[in-house]
Amino acid sequence: MSPDMFATVKRPTLVINERICRANISRMAEKARQSGVVFRPHFKTHQSLQVGRWFRDYGVEKITVSSLTMARRFAEDGWNDITIAFPFNLREINEYPYIAGKPKLNLLVDSPQVLRQLAKGLEYDAGIFIEIDTGYGRSGIYHKDIEKIREVLKETEQAGQLSFAGFLTHAGNTYAAGGRDEVVALYRESVQSLLSLKTYFPGAMLSAGDTPSCSLVRDHSMLDEIRPGNFVYYDLMQYGLGSCSFEDIGVCVACPVSGIYPERNEVVVYGGAVHLSKEAADHNGKRYGLVVSFTEKGWTRPLPETVLITLSQEHGIIRTSPEVIRQIKYGDLLGIIPVHSCLTANLLKDDTLIIP
Amino acid sequence: MSPDMFATVKRPTLVINERICRANISRMAEKARQSGVVFRPHFKTHQSLQVGRWFRDYGVEKITVSSLTMARRFAEDGWNDITIAFPFNLREINEYPYIAGKPKLNLLVDSPQVLRQLAKGLEYDAGIFIEIDTGYGRSGIYHKDIEKIREVLKETEQAGQLSFAGFLTHAGNTYAAGGRDEVVALYRESVQSLLSLKTYFPGAMLSAGDTPSCSLVRDHSMLDEIRPGNFVYYDLMQYGLGSCSFEDIGVCVACPVSGIYPERNEVVVYGGAVHLSKEAADHNGKRYGLVVSFTEKGWTRPLPETVLITLSQEHGIIRTSPEVIRQIKYGDLLGIIPVHSCLTANLLKDDTLIIP
Repeated sequence: MSPDMFATVKRPTLVINERICRANISRMAEKARQSGVVFRPHFKTHQSLQVGRWFRDYGVEKITVSSLTMARRFAEDGWNDITIAFPFNLREINEYPYIAGKPKLNLLVDSPQVLRQLAKGLEYDAGIFIEIDTGYGRSGIYHKDIEKIREVLKETEQAGQLSFAGFLTHAGNTYAAGGRDEVVALYRESVQSLLSLKTYFPGAMLSAGDTPSCSLVRDHSMLDEIRPGNFVYYDLMQYGLGSCSFEDIGVCVACPVSGIYPERNEVVVYGGAVHLSKEAADHNGKRYGLVVSFTEKGWTRPLPETVLITLSQEHGIIRTSPEVIRQIKYGDLLGIIPVHSCLTANLLKDDTLIIP
Repeated sequence: MSPDMFATVKRPTLVINERICRANISRMAEKARQSGVVFRPHFKTHQSLQVGRWFRDYGVEKITVSSLTMARRFAEDGWNDITIAFPFNLREINEYPYIAGKPKLNLLVDSPQVLRQLAKGLEYDAGIFIEIDTGYGRSGIYHKDIEKIREVLKETEQAGQLSFAGFLTHAGNTYAAGGRDEVVALYRESVQSLLSLKTYFPGAMLSAGDTPSCSLVRDHSMLDEIRPGNFVYYDLMQYGLGSCSFEDIGVCVACPVSGIYPERNEVVVYGGAVHLSKEAADHNGKRYGLVVSFTEKGWTRPLPETVLITLSQEHGIIRTSPEVIRQIKYGDLLGIIPVHSCLTANLLKDDTLIIP
């Protein structure tokens, strides 16, 4: 069950299928081009220099990250136009001068207080995106609070080193949608809220676009920029939402089989919460991943009646059928299709295998 | 809200209170001594060389880890008696000769097939613990399957480089117990199952002891060895089970405040699933941690009516009260008491601050 290509895999390893990932990137880049919007993918999902370089082949020059640490990492690899899409963390303000290559940076702000401290303390030219909350309720200024938006904008325009870049939102509520139609409806609502700001702030650039809506909505021409991230790998959560087909999922975790228990139709793999994360998909009861076999070209469809049902720190318990269990041997590799590839890729960033 | 001791904290950081951790170690070491059993703590929780060294001050010379990678790391730091408490991973068999300092290793086996391959392929002297399943149903030979145990034992005794070390169990079902009484009852049942093996295999060494039962049961003299791990830090899960008091919890995660939303009584901290893990405690609805303030000496009791309710990759959303929110400023640090410190410490192993 473990072709030669996987012979070097000794421990839980993120297997990245380059062909699938490139197809995902290409499709999204093409959609952005057709919509006439900037494609600024979020690199927090893969966090990989090598995967990042693939994007260049599809014309990508601008990226999004979620921390200063990631901005530094990608700046060192030659990326020079980076948006840090996380409400500015004042405790890092003195670290901004120390970024290799001095990329053009865009920072995210949703309060006049933080903007004032940035204006006073940041020794670095930066674009300012004002984060707008269009209903997700995580961070951002509520889209109807025009006074607060105006206040941040005014302070931005008065600060010499800062320039207004536009309005940015993340409609993360699409992740909790019941399916395609709800994703599309939430996206429309979010875009409408952003567009309403043009009444007060004509000409402002609008940036939005999470993976579910960027995957399911064809035309993004009402926006100026889209920033999906997860789509490069996709995962079971996106598959459940309808954002992708199973064949579009570009990663799985190769896990060695360490225990076989035919009496209870279970298999224990070396692969636990420290490799996969504890994110669960709640279809058909709690589960932490679907299970595949490896082939010469990648991996199979999900094994029938086979689910990763429990995770402890290093153990994963797979429940399966007598038919499947009869084919499994100690030391085989099984592949786990992750529920949330962002968290899994973060845990395995030092343990990856790229296959063609 | 952020005393000088925390001035260096810029990003989510695991704050380790040395005084509390040492008290936890000391108490458990003393309990083992009084029970007349070997104390072989599990180092998978902290994974820290420095925290590991603290154990030496309480007479600890033998340790447990859950992977070959961890065994190597601690062997390089001078630990020379290590049990790898995970069913042997055949894919790593050729890596065993390359462990610094050649520690005495104990390996875990629960199948004749793996034992045969070890006997044939392992170029390394090793003790063999036969893993016993006393009811948890994760890995191990079911305690009533005497024939299978006998088979592994026989193969072990025939292999020149292998020697039988004893029976080992992890009664992880105590983690799902409803409280103290159930933990104690599960422990007794598990120990009885182990003891029953002495009828067939007199003189065999017995190793058990998870954190809940090691914390709640006074006398472990029916065993030969205990291997708790989590107790060095404890966490909300253990606090919920009654294994510890809130004051015994030795770690919290310092998170910078990046968003303040008085209109919905919420605060956003820089601290998400990639720092805390997605383990949730299900008391009073889903929650990912309690919240504290830092003081000159450590941290406070949990802030009233304040809970970490949502986690995305880098964001944590805290719901709180108007009284608490009025005292919070951008750039302050809040402390998150983690639900499951093993997973949190794993995520933050490169970002720690030890306070006295």
